[in-house]
Amino acid sequence: MKKSRERAAHTIRNVKMVLEYDGTNYCGFQTQKNGVTIQSVLEKSFAKILGKRVPIIASGRTDAGVHAVGHVFNIKAEFPMDDGRLLMGINSILPGDIAVKSVKTVDKSFHARRDAKWKRYRYVIINSKVPSPLQARTSWRVPVPLDVKKMRDAAKTLVGEHDFRSFMGKRSSVKTTVRNIISLTVKKTGARIVVDVTANGFLKYMVRIIVGTLVEVGKGSLLPGGVKKVLAGKERANAGPTAPPHGLCLVEVGYE
Amino acid sequence: MKKSRERAAHTIRNVKMVLEYDGTNYCGFQTQKNGVTIQSVLEKSFAKILGKRVPIIASGRTDAGVHAVGHVFNIKAEFPMDDGRLLMGINSILPGDIAVKSVKTVDKSFHARRDAKWKRYRYVIINSKVPSPLQARTSWRVPVPLDVKKMRDAAKTLVGEHDFRSFMGKRSSVKTTVRNIISLTVKKTGARIVVDVTANGFLKYMVRIIVGTLVEVGKGSLLPGGVKKVLAGKERANAGPTAPPHGLCLVEVGYE
Repeated sequence: MKKSRERAAHTIRNVKMVLEYDGTNYCGFQTQKNGVTIQSVLEKSFAKILGKRVPIIASGRTDAGVHAVGHVFNIKAEFPMDDGRLLMGINSILPGDIAVKSVKTVDKSFHARRDAKWKRYRYVIINSKVPSPLQARTSWRVPVPLDVKKMRDAAKTLVGEHDFRSFMGKRSSVKTTVRNIISLTVKKTGARIVVDVTANGFLKYMVRIIVGTLVEVGKGSLLPGGVKKVLAGKERANAGPTAPPHGLCLVEVGYE
Repeated sequence: MKKSRERAAHTIRNVKMVLEYDGTNYCGFQTQKNGVTIQSVLEKSFAKILGKRVPIIASGRTDAGVHAVGHVFNIKAEFPMDDGRLLMGINSILPGDIAVKSVKTVDKSFHARRDAKWKRYRYVIINSKVPSPLQARTSWRVPVPLDVKKMRDAAKTLVGEHDFRSFMGKRSSVKTTVRNIISLTVKKTGARIVVDVTANGFLKYMVRIIVGTLVEVGKGSLLPGGVKKVLAGKERANAGPTAPPHGLCLVEVGYE
Protein backbone atom coordinates (compact mmCIF):
# COMPACT_ATOMS: atom_id res chain seq x y z
CA MET A 1 0.00 0.00 0.00
CA LYS A 2 2.70 2.43 1.04
CA LYS A 3 4.78 1.50 -1.98
CA SER A 4 2.05 2.15 -4.54
CA ARG A 5 1.34 5.51 -2.93
CA GLU A 6 4.96 6.45 -3.28
CA ARG A 7 4.98 5.46 -6.90
CA ALA A 8 1.90 7.60 -7.55
CA ALA A 9 3.51 10.51 -5.75
CA HIS A 10 6.47 10.31 -8.09
CA THR A 11 4.36 11.05 -11.12
CA ILE A 12 2.75 14.18 -9.71
CA ARG A 13 3.85 17.18 -11.79
CA ASN A 14 3.45 20.88 -11.16
CA VAL A 15 2.37 22.31 -14.50
CA LYS A 16 2.34 26.02 -15.35
CA MET A 17 -0.12 27.08 -18.01
CA VAL A 18 -0.82 30.33 -19.87
CA LEU A 19 -4.44 30.98 -20.69
CA GLU A 20 -6.42 33.05 -23.22
CA TYR A 21 -10.16 33.59 -22.95
CA ASP A 22 -13.04 35.65 -24.22
CA GLY A 23 -14.74 36.48 -20.93
CA THR A 24 -18.03 37.63 -22.51
CA ASN A 25 -20.04 34.60 -21.48
CA TYR A 26 -18.50 33.99 -18.04
CA CYS A 27 -19.24 35.17 -14.51
CA GLY A 28 -15.56 35.95 -14.01
CA PHE A 29 -12.61 33.70 -13.31
CA GLN A 30 -13.11 32.37 -9.82
CA THR A 31 -15.51 29.54 -8.99
CA GLN A 32 -18.66 30.79 -7.30
CA LYS A 33 -22.00 29.34 -6.28
CA ASN A 34 -24.03 30.60 -9.21
CA GLY A 35 -22.95 31.00 -12.81
CA VAL A 36 -20.30 29.48 -15.02
CA THR A 37 -16.75 30.69 -14.39
CA ILE A 38 -13.46 30.18 -16.24
CA GLN A 39 -12.06 28.27 -13.26
CA SER A 40 -15.00 25.86 -13.05
CA VAL A 41 -14.80 25.13 -16.79
CA LEU A 42 -11.04 24.54 -16.49
CA GLU A 43 -11.37 22.21 -13.51
CA LYS A 44 -14.19 20.25 -15.12
CA SER A 45 -12.14 19.92 -18.31
CA PHE A 46 -9.01 18.74 -16.47
CA ALA A 47 -11.19 16.24 -14.58
CA LYS A 48 -11.87 14.53 -17.92
CA ILE A 49 -8.13 13.95 -18.31
CA LEU A 50 -7.37 13.22 -14.64
CA GLY A 51 -10.45 11.21 -13.69
CA LYS A 52 -11.03 13.50 -10.70
CA ARG A 53 -11.39 17.19 -9.94
CA VAL A 54 -8.12 18.90 -8.98
CA PRO A 55 -8.14 22.58 -7.99
CA ILE A 56 -6.06 24.96 -10.08
CA ILE A 57 -3.93 27.72 -8.52
CA ALA A 58 -4.59 30.94 -10.43
CA SER A 59 -2.32 33.99 -10.53
CA GLY A 60 -5.42 36.00 -9.73
CA ARG A 61 -9.03 36.48 -10.64
CA THR A 62 -10.69 38.58 -13.33
CA ASP A 63 -14.16 40.13 -13.12
CA ALA A 64 -17.17 38.95 -15.09
CA GLY A 65 -16.78 39.94 -18.75
CA VAL A 66 -13.03 40.64 -18.54
CA HIS A 67 -10.76 38.90 -21.08
CA ALA A 68 -7.24 37.49 -20.92
CA VAL A 69 -4.47 36.63 -23.35
CA GLY A 70 -1.88 35.82 -20.70
CA HIS A 71 -3.53 34.63 -17.50
CA VAL A 72 -1.34 32.10 -15.67
CA PHE A 73 -2.25 29.22 -13.39
CA ASN A 74 -0.59 26.07 -12.13
CA ILE A 75 -2.01 22.67 -11.34
CA LYS A 76 -0.40 19.78 -9.47
CA ALA A 77 -1.61 16.41 -10.66
CA GLU A 78 -0.66 13.05 -12.11
CA PHE A 79 -1.10 13.83 -15.78
CA PRO A 80 -1.12 10.69 -17.95
CA MET A 81 0.70 12.47 -20.82
CA ASP A 82 3.64 14.80 -21.48
CA ASP A 83 3.34 18.61 -21.74
CA GLY A 84 2.90 18.66 -25.53
CA ARG A 85 0.08 16.10 -25.52
CA LEU A 86 -1.51 17.80 -22.51
CA LEU A 87 -1.65 21.09 -24.45
CA MET A 88 -3.43 19.42 -27.35
CA GLY A 89 -5.62 17.32 -25.06
CA ILE A 90 -6.93 20.11 -22.85
CA ASN A 91 -7.67 22.36 -25.84
CA SER A 92 -9.69 19.59 -27.48
CA ILE A 93 -11.90 19.52 -24.36
CA LEU A 94 -12.18 23.26 -23.60
CA PRO A 95 -14.95 25.33 -25.22
CA GLY A 96 -14.02 27.70 -28.09
CA ASP A 97 -13.82 30.78 -25.87
CA ILE A 98 -11.12 29.37 -23.55
CA ALA A 99 -7.71 28.05 -24.66
CA VAL A 100 -4.46 27.03 -23.01
CA LYS A 101 -1.63 28.71 -24.95
CA SER A 102 1.30 26.89 -23.36
CA VAL A 103 2.04 24.09 -20.90
CA LYS A 104 5.27 23.67 -18.98
CA THR A 105 6.21 21.33 -16.14
CA VAL A 106 7.95 23.51 -13.55
CA ASP A 107 9.54 23.19 -10.14
CA LYS A 108 7.27 21.78 -7.43
CA SER A 109 7.62 25.06 -5.51
CA PHE A 110 6.12 27.25 -8.26
CA HIS A 111 2.91 28.96 -7.15
CA ALA A 112 1.13 31.06 -9.81
CA ARG A 113 -0.25 33.60 -7.33
CA ARG A 114 2.47 33.88 -4.67
CA ASP A 115 5.34 33.99 -7.18
CA ALA A 116 3.76 36.60 -9.47
CA LYS A 117 5.94 39.74 -9.49
CA TRP A 118 3.79 41.95 -11.73
CA LYS A 119 0.77 41.94 -14.00
CA ARG A 120 -0.04 43.90 -17.12
CA TYR A 121 -3.55 44.85 -18.16
CA ARG A 122 -4.76 46.54 -21.32
CA TYR A 123 -7.94 48.59 -21.54
CA VAL A 124 -9.33 49.55 -24.96
CA ILE A 125 -11.59 52.58 -25.48
CA ILE A 126 -13.21 53.34 -28.83
CA ASN A 127 -13.65 57.11 -28.82
CA SER A 128 -16.31 57.50 -31.49
CA LYS A 129 -19.88 58.63 -32.02
CA VAL A 130 -20.47 55.44 -34.00
CA PRO A 131 -20.20 51.85 -32.80
CA SER A 132 -17.57 49.39 -34.04
CA PRO A 133 -19.31 45.98 -34.15
CA LEU A 134 -16.07 44.05 -34.68
CA GLN A 135 -14.52 45.60 -31.57
CA ALA A 136 -17.67 45.72 -29.44
CA ARG A 137 -16.81 42.64 -27.36
CA THR A 138 -13.37 43.88 -26.43
CA SER A 139 -13.70 47.63 -25.99
CA TRP A 140 -15.65 50.38 -24.26
CA ARG A 141 -17.10 52.96 -26.62
CA VAL A 142 -17.05 56.53 -25.34
CA PRO A 143 -18.95 58.86 -27.73
CA VAL A 144 -17.82 62.18 -26.15
CA PRO A 145 -14.48 63.46 -27.52
CA LEU A 146 -11.59 62.70 -25.14
CA ASP A 147 -8.46 64.80 -24.73
CA VAL A 148 -5.74 62.16 -24.71
CA LYS A 149 -3.00 64.60 -23.71
CA LYS A 150 -4.87 65.41 -20.51
CA MET A 151 -5.45 61.71 -19.85
CA ARG A 152 -1.72 61.12 -20.27
CA ASP A 153 -0.86 63.93 -17.84
CA ALA A 154 -3.26 62.49 -15.27
CA ALA A 155 -1.88 58.98 -15.79
CA LYS A 156 1.63 60.15 -14.90
CA THR A 157 0.51 61.17 -11.41
CA LEU A 158 -0.58 57.59 -10.68
CA VAL A 159 2.75 55.94 -11.54
CA GLY A 160 4.79 54.77 -8.56
CA GLU A 161 4.01 53.39 -5.13
CA HIS A 162 0.82 54.88 -3.70
CA ASP A 163 -2.10 54.02 -1.48
CA PHE A 164 -4.74 53.26 -4.12
CA ARG A 165 -7.68 53.08 -1.69
CA SER A 166 -9.66 55.59 -3.81
CA PHE A 167 -9.29 53.22 -6.76
CA MET A 168 -10.64 50.11 -5.04
CA GLY A 169 -14.14 48.66 -5.33
CA LYS A 170 -16.25 48.33 -2.22
CA ARG A 171 -16.59 45.13 -0.17
CA SER A 172 -12.94 44.25 -0.63
CA SER A 173 -10.74 43.12 2.25
CA VAL A 174 -7.01 43.39 1.75
CA LYS A 175 -4.09 43.77 4.16
CA THR A 176 -2.79 46.85 2.42
CA THR A 177 -4.10 49.14 -0.31
CA VAL A 178 -0.59 50.23 -1.29
CA ARG A 179 0.43 49.13 -4.79
CA ASN A 180 3.24 50.05 -7.14
CA ILE A 181 2.27 51.07 -10.68
CA ILE A 182 5.40 50.42 -12.73
CA SER A 183 4.01 51.80 -15.97
CA LEU A 184 0.78 53.46 -17.13
CA THR A 185 0.51 54.63 -20.74
CA VAL A 186 -2.30 56.08 -22.85
CA LYS A 187 -1.95 55.77 -26.64
CA LYS A 188 -4.32 56.80 -29.40
CA THR A 189 -4.49 55.41 -32.94
CA GLY A 190 -7.49 56.66 -34.90
CA ALA A 191 -10.54 56.24 -32.68
CA ARG A 192 -8.76 53.61 -30.56
CA ILE A 193 -7.34 54.63 -27.18
CA VAL A 194 -5.24 51.97 -25.46
CA VAL A 195 -4.45 52.19 -21.75
CA ASP A 196 -1.66 49.82 -20.67
CA VAL A 197 -0.98 49.45 -16.97
CA THR A 198 1.66 47.33 -15.24
CA ALA A 199 1.79 47.01 -11.44
CA ASN A 200 3.13 44.69 -8.76
CA GLY A 201 -0.51 43.94 -7.94
CA PHE A 202 -4.01 45.30 -8.38
CA LEU A 203 -6.88 46.01 -6.02
CA LYS A 204 -10.44 45.02 -6.86
CA TYR A 205 -11.67 47.03 -9.91
CA MET A 206 -8.44 49.09 -9.75
CA VAL A 207 -7.75 49.20 -13.51
CA ARG A 208 -11.40 49.88 -14.33
CA ILE A 209 -11.64 52.74 -11.79
CA ILE A 210 -8.37 54.21 -13.09
CA VAL A 211 -9.73 54.09 -16.64
CA GLY A 212 -13.08 55.52 -15.55
CA THR A 213 -11.20 58.37 -13.84
CA LEU A 214 -8.93 59.01 -16.84
CA VAL A 215 -12.04 59.22 -19.04
CA GLU A 216 -13.46 61.89 -16.71
CA VAL A 217 -10.21 63.79 -17.21
CA GLY A 218 -10.39 63.28 -20.99
CA LYS A 219 -13.94 64.68 -21.00
CA GLY A 220 -12.82 67.71 -19.01
CA SER A 221 -14.96 66.85 -15.95
CA LEU A 222 -11.81 66.48 -13.85
CA LEU A 223 -8.50 68.33 -14.21
CA PRO A 224 -5.38 66.19 -14.75
CA GLY A 225 -3.98 67.60 -11.49
CA GLY A 226 -7.17 66.57 -9.70
CA VAL A 227 -6.21 62.91 -9.91
CA LYS A 228 -3.39 63.51 -7.42
CA LYS A 229 -6.00 64.85 -4.99
CA VAL A 230 -8.25 61.85 -5.61
CA LEU A 231 -5.29 59.62 -4.71
CA ALA A 232 -4.48 61.63 -1.57
CA GLY A 233 -8.13 61.74 -0.44
CA LYS A 234 -8.34 57.92 -0.18
CA GLU A 235 -12.07 58.12 -0.91
CA ARG A 236 -13.59 55.91 -3.61
CA ALA A 237 -16.34 58.49 -4.17
CA ASN A 238 -13.83 61.06 -5.44
CA ALA A 239 -12.58 58.84 -8.29
CA GLY A 240 -14.42 58.32 -11.58
CA PRO A 241 -16.93 55.57 -12.32
CA THR A 242 -15.83 51.95 -12.81
CA ALA A 243 -15.28 51.42 -16.55
CA PRO A 244 -17.20 48.43 -17.99
CA PRO A 245 -15.44 45.04 -17.88
CA HIS A 246 -15.49 44.15 -21.57
CA GLY A 247 -12.79 46.71 -22.45
CA LEU A 248 -10.31 45.05 -20.11
CA CYS A 249 -7.84 42.27 -20.85
CA LEU A 250 -5.17 40.65 -18.64
CA VAL A 251 -2.17 40.65 -20.95
CA GLU A 252 0.71 39.15 -18.96
CA VAL A 253 1.75 37.90 -15.54
CA GLY A 254 5.45 38.29 -14.79
CA TYR A 255 7.56 35.98 -12.60
CA GLU A 256 10.97 37.62 -12.98
CA MET B 1 -51.29 66.86 -57.17
CA LYS B 2 -48.44 67.39 -59.57
CA LYS B 3 -47.08 70.21 -57.45
CA SER B 4 -46.92 68.20 -54.23
CA ARG B 5 -45.19 65.37 -56.10
CA GLU B 6 -42.59 67.77 -57.33
CA ARG B 7 -42.03 69.10 -53.85
CA ALA B 8 -41.60 65.56 -52.53
CA ALA B 9 -39.17 64.80 -55.34
CA HIS B 10 -37.08 67.73 -54.29
CA THR B 11 -36.36 66.23 -50.89
CA ILE B 12 -35.15 62.90 -52.22
CA ARG B 13 -31.46 62.55 -51.39
CA ASN B 14 -28.92 60.04 -52.58
CA VAL B 15 -27.00 59.05 -49.46
CA LYS B 16 -23.70 57.14 -49.47
CA MET B 17 -22.97 55.13 -46.34
CA VAL B 18 -19.98 53.15 -45.10
CA LEU B 19 -20.77 50.04 -43.13
CA GLU B 20 -19.07 47.82 -40.53
CA TYR B 21 -20.44 44.45 -39.48
CA ASP B 22 -19.63 41.25 -37.67
CA GLY B 23 -20.95 38.74 -40.18
CA THR B 24 -20.93 35.78 -37.74
CA ASN B 25 -24.70 35.62 -37.29
CA TYR B 26 -25.78 36.49 -40.85
CA CYS B 27 -26.50 34.50 -44.00
CA GLY B 28 -24.37 36.93 -46.01
CA PHE B 29 -25.11 40.41 -47.28
CA GLN B 30 -27.72 40.02 -49.96
CA THR B 31 -31.41 39.47 -49.21
CA GLN B 32 -32.48 35.89 -49.82
CA LYS B 33 -35.56 33.77 -49.18
CA ASN B 34 -34.35 32.06 -46.03
CA GLY B 35 -32.19 33.46 -43.28
CA VAL B 36 -31.38 36.90 -41.96
CA THR B 37 -29.01 38.97 -44.10
CA ILE B 38 -27.23 42.29 -43.57
CA GLN B 39 -29.25 43.85 -46.40
CA SER B 40 -32.61 42.78 -44.97
CA VAL B 41 -31.70 44.13 -41.52
CA LEU B 42 -30.57 47.43 -43.07
CA GLU B 43 -33.73 47.84 -45.17
CA LYS B 44 -35.99 46.97 -42.23
CA SER B 45 -34.11 49.47 -40.05
CA PHE B 46 -34.32 52.27 -42.65
CA ALA B 47 -38.05 51.52 -43.03
CA LYS B 48 -38.47 52.61 -39.39
CA ILE B 49 -37.08 56.02 -40.32
CA LEU B 50 -38.70 56.28 -43.77
CA GLY B 51 -42.09 54.72 -43.06
CA LYS B 52 -41.64 52.36 -46.00
CA ARG B 53 -39.12 49.87 -47.33
CA VAL B 54 -36.62 51.36 -49.79
CA PRO B 55 -34.03 49.09 -51.44
CA ILE B 56 -30.38 49.88 -50.82
CA ILE B 57 -27.78 49.73 -53.61
CA ALA B 58 -24.75 47.81 -52.31
CA SER B 59 -21.23 47.97 -53.70
CA GLY B 60 -21.32 44.18 -53.69
CA ARG B 61 -22.24 41.20 -51.61
CA THR B 62 -20.30 39.26 -49.01
CA ASP B 63 -20.71 35.55 -48.20
CA ALA B 64 -22.30 34.20 -45.04
CA GLY B 65 -19.94 34.73 -42.09
CA VAL B 66 -17.74 37.31 -43.85
CA HIS B 67 -17.17 40.63 -42.03
CA ALA B 68 -16.74 44.22 -43.22
CA VAL B 69 -15.25 47.43 -41.90
CA GLY B 70 -15.72 49.42 -45.09
CA HIS B 71 -18.63 48.08 -47.11
CA VAL B 72 -20.37 50.87 -49.07
CA PHE B 73 -23.97 51.27 -50.18
CA ASN B 74 -26.22 54.09 -51.26
CA ILE B 75 -29.90 54.66 -50.73
CA LYS B 76 -32.19 57.18 -52.42
CA ALA B 77 -35.00 58.33 -50.19
CA GLU B 78 -36.72 61.26 -48.54
CA PHE B 79 -34.92 61.25 -45.21
CA PRO B 80 -36.64 63.42 -42.60
CA MET B 81 -33.29 64.49 -41.06
CA ASP B 82 -29.83 65.69 -42.08
CA ASP B 83 -26.79 63.40 -42.52
CA GLY B 84 -25.53 63.81 -38.94
CA ARG B 85 -28.87 62.94 -37.36
CA LEU B 86 -29.37 60.10 -39.83
CA LEU B 87 -26.05 58.56 -38.71
CA MET B 88 -27.11 58.65 -35.07
CA GLY B 89 -30.68 57.58 -35.87
CA ILE B 90 -29.87 54.51 -37.96
CA ASN B 91 -27.26 53.29 -35.45
CA SER B 92 -29.80 53.54 -32.63
CA ILE B 93 -32.05 51.15 -34.60
CA LEU B 94 -29.45 48.70 -35.97
CA PRO B 95 -28.43 45.65 -33.88
CA GLY B 96 -25.02 45.68 -32.15
CA ASP B 97 -23.27 43.67 -34.87
CA ILE B 98 -24.06 46.16 -37.69
CA ALA B 99 -23.15 49.85 -37.69
CA VAL B 100 -23.11 52.70 -40.20
CA LYS B 101 -19.72 54.45 -39.87
CA SER B 102 -20.45 57.49 -42.03
CA VAL B 103 -23.31 59.12 -43.94
CA LYS B 104 -22.88 61.57 -46.82
CA THR B 105 -25.40 63.04 -49.22
CA VAL B 106 -23.84 62.68 -52.68
CA ASP B 107 -24.65 63.44 -56.29
CA LYS B 108 -27.83 61.82 -57.59
CA SER B 109 -25.78 59.90 -60.15
CA PHE B 110 -23.67 58.04 -57.54
CA HIS B 111 -24.16 54.28 -57.69
CA ALA B 112 -22.30 52.22 -55.07
CA ARG B 113 -21.82 49.20 -57.31
CA ARG B 114 -21.34 50.68 -60.79
CA ASP B 115 -18.99 53.44 -59.63
CA ALA B 116 -16.74 51.20 -57.52
CA LYS B 117 -13.22 51.22 -58.98
CA TRP B 118 -11.59 48.74 -56.62
CA LYS B 119 -12.10 46.77 -53.41
CA ARG B 120 -9.72 45.69 -50.71
CA TYR B 121 -10.17 42.56 -48.66
CA ARG B 122 -8.17 41.28 -45.69
CA TYR B 123 -7.88 37.63 -44.73
CA VAL B 124 -6.44 36.69 -41.32
CA ILE B 125 -4.85 33.31 -40.63
CA ILE B 126 -3.72 32.26 -37.15
CA ASN B 127 -0.87 29.83 -37.77
CA SER B 128 -0.77 28.02 -34.45
CA LYS B 129 -1.29 24.63 -32.86
CA VAL B 130 -3.37 26.32 -30.17
CA PRO B 131 -6.61 28.29 -30.61
CA SER B 132 -6.92 32.03 -29.98
CA PRO B 133 -10.41 32.54 -28.49
CA LEU B 134 -10.30 36.34 -28.84
CA GLN B 135 -9.51 36.07 -32.55
CA ALA B 136 -11.66 33.03 -33.32
CA ARG B 137 -14.53 34.99 -34.88
CA THR B 138 -12.32 36.88 -37.28
CA SER B 139 -9.60 34.44 -38.34
CA TRP B 140 -8.93 30.98 -39.73
CA ARG B 141 -6.63 28.88 -37.59
CA VAL B 142 -4.20 26.67 -39.51
CA PRO B 143 -2.31 24.36 -37.12
CA VAL B 144 0.28 23.10 -39.67
CA PRO B 145 3.37 25.36 -39.97
CA LEU B 146 3.17 27.62 -43.04
CA ASP B 147 6.15 28.88 -45.04
CA VAL B 148 5.25 32.53 -45.53
CA LYS B 149 8.08 33.19 -47.97
CA LYS B 150 6.68 30.56 -50.33
CA MET B 151 3.19 32.01 -49.93
CA ARG B 152 4.57 35.43 -50.84
CA ASP B 153 6.30 34.06 -53.93
CA ALA B 154 3.10 32.39 -55.05
CA ALA B 155 1.08 35.54 -54.38
CA LYS B 156 3.30 37.54 -56.76
CA THR B 157 2.30 35.35 -59.70
CA LEU B 158 -1.37 36.30 -59.18
CA VAL B 159 -0.85 40.07 -59.31
CA GLY B 160 -2.00 41.76 -62.53
CA GLU B 161 -4.76 41.18 -65.06
CA HIS B 162 -5.55 37.50 -65.45
CA ASP B 163 -8.40 35.16 -66.17
CA PHE B 164 -9.23 33.99 -62.63
CA ARG B 165 -11.64 31.23 -63.69
CA SER B 166 -9.72 28.66 -61.55
CA PHE B 167 -10.34 30.88 -58.53
CA MET B 168 -14.11 31.17 -58.91
CA GLY B 169 -16.78 29.24 -57.04
CA LYS B 170 -19.18 27.05 -59.00
CA ARG B 171 -22.67 28.13 -60.10
CA SER B 172 -21.55 31.66 -60.82
CA SER B 173 -22.57 33.47 -64.01
CA VAL B 174 -20.44 36.44 -65.01
CA LYS B 175 -19.70 38.06 -68.39
CA THR B 176 -15.98 37.74 -67.94
CA THR B 177 -13.71 36.00 -65.45
CA VAL B 178 -10.84 38.43 -66.11
CA ARG B 179 -9.95 40.59 -63.12
CA ASN B 180 -7.03 42.83 -62.24
CA ILE B 181 -5.33 42.21 -58.90
CA ILE B 182 -3.64 45.53 -58.08
CA SER B 183 -1.94 44.31 -54.94
CA LEU B 184 -1.64 41.03 -53.03
CA THR B 185 0.54 40.92 -49.91
CA VAL B 186 1.22 38.29 -47.24
CA LYS B 187 2.55 39.54 -43.89
CA LYS B 188 3.36 37.63 -40.71
CA THR B 189 3.48 39.01 -37.16
CA GLY B 190 3.87 36.31 -34.52
CA ALA B 191 1.29 33.62 -35.29
CA ARG B 192 -0.82 36.05 -37.32
CA ILE B 193 -0.62 35.94 -41.12
CA VAL B 194 -2.46 38.74 -42.91
CA VAL B 195 -3.31 38.49 -46.60
CA ASP B 196 -4.36 41.82 -48.15
CA VAL B 197 -5.75 41.81 -51.65
CA THR B 198 -6.90 44.74 -53.76
CA ALA B 199 -8.53 44.25 -57.17
CA ASN B 200 -10.80 46.05 -59.60
CA GLY B 201 -13.36 43.37 -58.84
CA PHE B 202 -13.70 39.88 -57.40
CA LEU B 203 -15.34 36.68 -58.60
CA LYS B 204 -17.45 34.54 -56.27
CA TYR B 205 -15.24 33.06 -53.49
CA MET B 206 -12.15 34.49 -55.28
CA VAL B 207 -10.33 35.76 -52.17
CA ARG B 208 -11.15 32.63 -50.19
CA ILE B 209 -9.91 30.31 -53.00
CA ILE B 210 -6.74 32.40 -53.38
CA VAL B 211 -6.11 32.11 -49.62
CA GLY B 212 -6.91 28.38 -49.65
CA THR B 213 -4.40 27.95 -52.49
CA LEU B 214 -1.72 30.07 -50.77
CA VAL B 215 -2.13 27.91 -47.66
CA GLU B 216 -1.51 24.79 -49.78
CA VAL B 217 1.70 26.46 -50.95
CA GLY B 218 2.62 27.38 -47.36
CA LYS B 219 2.14 23.76 -46.31
CA GLY B 220 4.33 22.56 -49.16
CA SER B 221 1.52 20.68 -50.94
CA LEU B 222 1.86 22.98 -53.95
CA LEU B 223 4.99 24.70 -55.26
CA PRO B 224 4.90 28.52 -55.51
CA GLY B 225 5.44 28.18 -59.28
CA GLY B 226 2.49 25.80 -59.47
CA VAL B 227 0.06 28.66 -58.87
CA LYS B 228 0.86 30.07 -62.32
CA LYS B 229 -0.14 26.74 -63.81
CA VAL B 230 -3.36 26.70 -61.77
CA LEU B 231 -4.14 30.14 -63.23
CA ALA B 232 -3.34 29.03 -66.78
CA GLY B 233 -5.33 25.79 -66.45
CA LYS B 234 -8.62 27.67 -65.81
CA GLU B 235 -9.89 24.72 -63.79
CA ARG B 236 -11.34 25.28 -60.32
CA ALA B 237 -10.30 21.73 -59.32
CA ASN B 238 -6.60 22.62 -59.65
CA ALA B 239 -6.74 25.42 -57.09
CA GLY B 240 -6.76 24.93 -53.32
CA PRO B 241 -9.84 24.59 -51.11
CA THR B 242 -12.07 27.59 -50.32
CA ALA B 243 -10.83 29.10 -47.05
CA PRO B 244 -13.58 29.51 -44.41
CA PRO B 245 -15.55 32.79 -44.47
CA HIS B 246 -14.89 34.01 -40.92
CA GLY B 247 -11.25 34.95 -41.67
CA LEU B 248 -12.36 37.38 -44.38
CA CYS B 249 -13.19 41.07 -44.05
CA LEU B 250 -14.11 43.65 -46.71
CA VAL B 251 -11.88 46.57 -45.77
CA GLU B 252 -12.52 49.29 -48.33
CA VAL B 253 -14.33 50.12 -51.56
CA GLY B 254 -12.62 52.73 -53.71
CA TYR B 255 -14.34 55.23 -55.99
CA GLU B 256 -11.32 57.17 -57.30
